[in-house]
Amino acid sequence: RIDADRLWDSIHEMAKIGPGVAGGSNRQTLTDEDAKGRELFQDWCDAAGLSMGIDEMGNMFARREGTDPDALPVYVGSHLDTQPTGGRYDGVLGVLGALEVVRTLNDLNIKTKHPIVVTNWTNEEGTRFAPAMLASGVFAGEHERDWAYDREDADGKRFGDELERIGWKGDETVGERKMHAFFELHIEQGPILEAEGKQIGVVTHGQGLWWLQVTLTGKDAHTGSTPMDMRVNAGLGMARITELVHKIAMDNQPGAVGAIGQANVYPNSRNVIPGKAVFTIDFRSPEQEKLDGMKARLEAEAPGIADDLGLGIEIEVAGHFDPVTFDEGCVIAIRNGAEALGYSHRDIISGAGHDACWINKLYPTAMVMCPCVDGLSHNEAEEISKEWAQAGADVLLHAVVETAEV
Amino acid sequence: RIDADRLWDSIHEMAKIGPGVAGGSNRQTLTDEDAKGRELFQDWCDAAGLSMGIDEMGNMFARREGTDPDALPVYVGSHLDTQPTGGRYDGVLGVLGALEVVRTLNDLNIKTKHPIVVTNWTNEEGTRFAPAMLASGVFAGEHERDWAYDREDADGKRFGDELERIGWKGDETVGERKMHAFFELHIEQGPILEAEGKQIGVVTHGQGLWWLQVTLTGKDAHTGSTPMDMRVNAGLGMARITELVHKIAMDNQPGAVGAIGQANVYPNSRNVIPGKAVFTIDFRSPEQEKLDGMKARLEAEAPGIADDLGLGIEIEVAGHFDPVTFDEGCVIAIRNGAEALGYSHRDIISGAGHDACWINKLYPTAMVMCPCVDGLSHNEAEEISKEWAQAGADVLLHAVVETAEV
Ligand SMILES: NC(=O)NCCC(=O)O
Ligand SMILES: NC(=O)NCCC(=O)O
Repeated sequence: RIDADRLWDSIHEMAKIGPGVAGGSNRQTLTDEDAKGRELFQDWCDAAGLSMGIDEMGNMFARREGTDPDALPVYVGSHLDTQPTGGRYDGVLGVLGALEVVRTLNDLNIKTKHPIVVTNWTNEEGTRFAPAMLASGVFAGEHERDWAYDREDADGKRFGDELERIGWKGDETVGERKMHAFFELHIEQGPILEAEGKQIGVVTHGQGLWWLQVTLTGKDAHTGSTPMDMRVNAGLGMARITELVHKIAMDNQPGAVGAIGQANVYPNSRNVIPGKAVFTIDFRSPEQEKLDGMKARLEAEAPGIADDLGLGIEIEVAGHFDPVTFDEGCVIAIRNGAEALGYSHRDIISGAGHDACWINKLYPTAMVMCPCVDGLSHNEAEEISKEWAQAGADVLLHAVVETAEV
Repeated sequence: RIDADRLWDSIHEMAKIGPGVAGGSNRQTLTDEDAKGRELFQDWCDAAGLSMGIDEMGNMFARREGTDPDALPVYVGSHLDTQPTGGRYDGVLGVLGALEVVRTLNDLNIKTKHPIVVTNWTNEEGTRFAPAMLASGVFAGEHERDWAYDREDADGKRFGDELERIGWKGDETVGERKMHAFFELHIEQGPILEAEGKQIGVVTHGQGLWWLQVTLTGKDAHTGSTPMDMRVNAGLGMARITELVHKIAMDNQPGAVGAIGQANVYPNSRNVIPGKAVFTIDFRSPEQEKLDGMKARLEAEAPGIADDLGLGIEIEVAGHFDPVTFDEGCVIAIRNGAEALGYSHRDIISGAGHDACWINKLYPTAMVMCPCVDGLSHNEAEEISKEWAQAGADVLLHAVVETAEV
């Protein structure tokens, strides 16, 4: 079993870097805070005797040697970047839980046949640079490295430039590493485990996603002196498409969600009718047909809304992954771990996207989840108990050890 | 008659300061660009032999002496600040048209009994610091000076601090000046004059306004893993209130408008259900009953929308003025000017708010309007012809001379 106090202390030590305004974290990817978080993680890896490798996407790989020089490593990790108003556990639990696995093996002087590599993936959140899981996506061959470098944040800063600026661009070619397996521990970010009183979620599947960035083009004009029938109001178009997104998601219940998280009108002045609106729709479902059906309906109906208002409309894909089925062997390793340790568990579908979803395309992969209070995540009030963290990391330890072979 | 080329050159010289991105202007109030625009105006006033006074709100008063030492001055002017994506004429035509009146009187060596004071009011637009017409409002006793100083922009910068920073805070007590009359020349910012082929609008009334700032409070949560029935989506609430505002305005046709120009969701991240939305509603009508009725209906119905979604709602007044009836004598002076010069004209209601609306509460006031292309304003593509500018400034000259008495 892992050392729950050590894990807990490390999580809250990390949370001191890029503190939020309400008890959570703001350590967005490729900011100065992200760099400081990486340094702390590097220090801890050094202290645990791990050797660090950094690739061209800034992904961090801290390796504990195995006993068989020919055995491929078991990778374990998640991400240290956060939402602008994020919690302390989303991603962090998975990276520091992986570190705790290695620390525990060190304490117990247990050697594994396969090396173990504690991993921190760059820009999982996708809040500053879309899409989410960008660097694991490049690793998995889903995106080109240079395309990733060209992603821009809201201020027009390039991903590649920011990665260089914070000093965490490595030399290693992205994706050249081969894995025996990949495991990720994460908080559920939803309400099911807590509601059912289960300590462990054995993640068998993940929802698919479409991010659609919509640009509506109208005409800036004076809110006072422009007659109603001469307006081409992009803000009104955004409102109607927001309602449509909600309706599409509701019409696909159960097993689908939809919302708009990012929404901007221009010039965003009290007395100017918005001449432009840019916003991103987030549709998800574990069912391919529902997922693609929601996108298709949006693409069919939104242009009519724009047309009625005289607006130009452009719809671009800003992120996408299909529903995921995790590797049966890895899933069993996790279920075995929960059983062996006597933790209550259930199979679960991940509502969120994770780096594990991309890595699963290449190598046997699965995830462990622990509950979070009220299912709340992407909120500074995100909370878990030390016992939940412990159970999750214990199961991770068992799955990793079973797979890495003692 | 005024010198149209000189007026036109001055307008386009001013537009070089704080150029927009699409041919217009971005010289928002109390920015470095505003300071540079003020310097240029000051230089021109010096060259015209005017003496400058600055009050504690940064209002600029450039005085041409009259022949009667006891006669109160006739004030003429408008504002030099612009929208973030504003036009070259909104406000600027009125200040530089007033300067052109004085330059013309200088050329012709005409002395008036009453002094003439060319005026530049601070922060007419209200886009950076709400409400609009802030400094003329303080002058007219509608707002306290210190309350105005405490207005904050989107970055939390205080009006008072920014006024000091750009170096244009004067010593003169705001509102201590007495006026014989006030005249303002402005572009129509609406489509009526151009559509009817009239050169001059004789402004008899102005629309009233309510700006209502709404804050909706929901719960930040993950767009993927939060079930639809657990969401408290402030962005969806904003969308529904946007539709309500539109409906209220449409139900009050003709003679009313309504829209939301400024709209922000928080944390504004693609995969976070907005936990907060802040936006400003702009309702206007020349009829008191309609104006107040729209506000009352919004206040009655918006809480129900919020309630349905589980959202908290707060509605604050961010700006207000009642419908305006301008001074009969001043209106006649303008109509006389148009008649005498042979310009086609019609009476018109101002759709926008103007500094003249506040000054009218204290002193005899009226406005001249000239057409603008397609009625477009608060848009970088705002356009007028040199001939329209000339007609407007000619009528202003006549009204001012008639009122200031030769
Ligand atoms: N786990 C997580 O929040 N990932 C971010 C990508 C997503 O929105 O699902
Ligand atoms: N004229 C003008 O655009 N004034 C700004 C205040 C308003 O929105 O009416």
